[in-house]
Amino acid sequence: MHLLITNDDGILAPGLAALVRQMEETHRVSVVAPEYEQTAVGHAITLADPIRVHRVQRNGRFYGWAVTGTPADCVKIGLLELLDSPPDLVLSGINLGPNVGVNVLYSGTVSAATEAAILGLPGIAFSLDTYTDPDFDPPARLAAGLVDALAPRLAGEWPAATCLNVNFPARPLAEIKGLSLTRQAVTRFEERFEKRIDPHGRAYYWQCGQEPKNRVEPGTDVWALARGLVSVSLLRPDLSAPPGPDWAPDLEAALKVIT
Amino acid sequence: MHLLITNDDGILAPGLAALVRQMEETHRVSVVAPEYEQTAVGHAITLADPIRVHRVQRNGRFYGWAVTGTPADCVKIGLLELLDSPPDLVLSGINLGPNVGVNVLYSGTVSAATEAAILGLPGIAFSLDTYTDPDFDPPARLAAGLVDALAPRLAGEWPAATCLNVNFPARPLAEIKGLSLTRQAVTRFEERFEKRIDPHGRAYYWQCGQEPKNRVEPGTDVWALARGLVSVSLLRPDLSAPPGPDWAPDLEAALKVIT
Repeated sequence: MHLLITNDDGILAPGLAALVRQMEETHRVSVVAPEYEQTAVGHAITLADPIRVHRVQRNGRFYGWAVTGTPADCVKIGLLELLDSPPDLVLSGINLGPNVGVNVLYSGTVSAATEAAILGLPGIAFSLDTYTDPDFDPPARLAAGLVDALAPRLAGEWPAATCLNVNFPARPLAEIKGLSLTRQAVTRFEERFEKRIDPHGRAYYWQCGQEPKNRVEPGTDVWALARGLVSVSLLRPDLSAPPGPDWAPDLEAALKVIT
Repeated sequence: MHLLITNDDGILAPGLAALVRQMEETHRVSVVAPEYEQTAVGHAITLADPIRVHRVQRNGRFYGWAVTGTPADCVKIGLLELLDSPPDLVLSGINLGPNVGVNVLYSGTVSAATEAAILGLPGIAFSLDTYTDPDFDPPARLAAGLVDALAPRLAGEWPAATCLNVNFPARPLAEIKGLSLTRQAVTRFEERFEKRIDPHGRAYYWQCGQEPKNRVEPGTDVWALARGLVSVSLLRPDLSAPPGPDWAPDLEAALKVIT
């Protein structure tokens, strides 16, 4: 297969390199990744500024295109401008740190996979559940196994406008307990702003947040990781809520209020 | 009610001013908005950089807090640091330009409302379907009517983790044909990258995209606007796809491939 690989940690990130190295063993790989780290950019795209593209060499050969934009920009410009043929699959990652719960909305890594879904391509986002001392080889091997196992589905049965969000526990392969098909947890983060004073006497804030540990709903991505399972969520680029209570009378009332 | 009002066009935007002016007639308003325009920032949050907050005056009195961050940052820091009491409702807009279809994911305006939903607050995003010569008074009046009509629901029946995405046709009040409860269209944009050469001989790209006009699904936000209806979508901060085809065998196969 022809794989477009991107990430949000930037084109020089070790997690990207591990994924590329593993996938190159059996696939053709095109790397289109942000020139700089894009932390928590969500599904941002670059409209107000021009986008630059630079060719990056590694180990004496062409490695990929570095884009002065977001992961979603990379998928778009890769497909529409840079690649000589459309990819069969878009991969994003391997991200340093998990992308579960409401983080899914903040995540540039995931946005590359949802962007693929919007563009009509299969996409998979990969993230590793650690911020320190990562070993990207086990998740890279699992990612390759997952792609191989999904190959028949990729050949025709991939559901429209759907992508996968995969999170790996930070454990050796032998300690991975299985895979679990999950849904995104929507539990609120525990967060705060830490106020500090700069050397010039002016205030600034650092935003800090963490996944709450005490309210984990079974069947969610957060729940799977906590149990040492690989979490696989199906995502769609669609925030529509299920119908729920009937809003029509309120909306009719709103029209009456103003006419 | 106490309203937190934000936007993604920046604290000096006329669409924000129109919404604030209208809502101040009957509510207490706290403005917490980005210091600079945040176009297509999606659900970005600011983690890698410190955040600054400046007090902004207009017409000789305190107007609101300008935040060097995204709309989602504004909602978070407003609730957690700046406001003396939690708001009853978060409003975002009125945005210059529609936020329908896959734009919902790219939109900073909408992300403020989904952030409110994450934080356990009711939120409504307002956008006007024009980029040129906007008249924000009709949508501001409609917005006020909608908020008044929803007041009983806000007092206790607001569904958990749900927000509203409201898009107004750019028409005089008398030509608004009604309100329609819609879902987000997920049709792919018509898009391209326009390659140019700068005065120094180096290439750059402008990203261009527009809502496709010829594939409009009934019941969607795009469909409602095209008919002169106010589009009201219920959104949740949840990208989980419905279960669909059974993925479990593929996932089991993936585990076998690597063990």
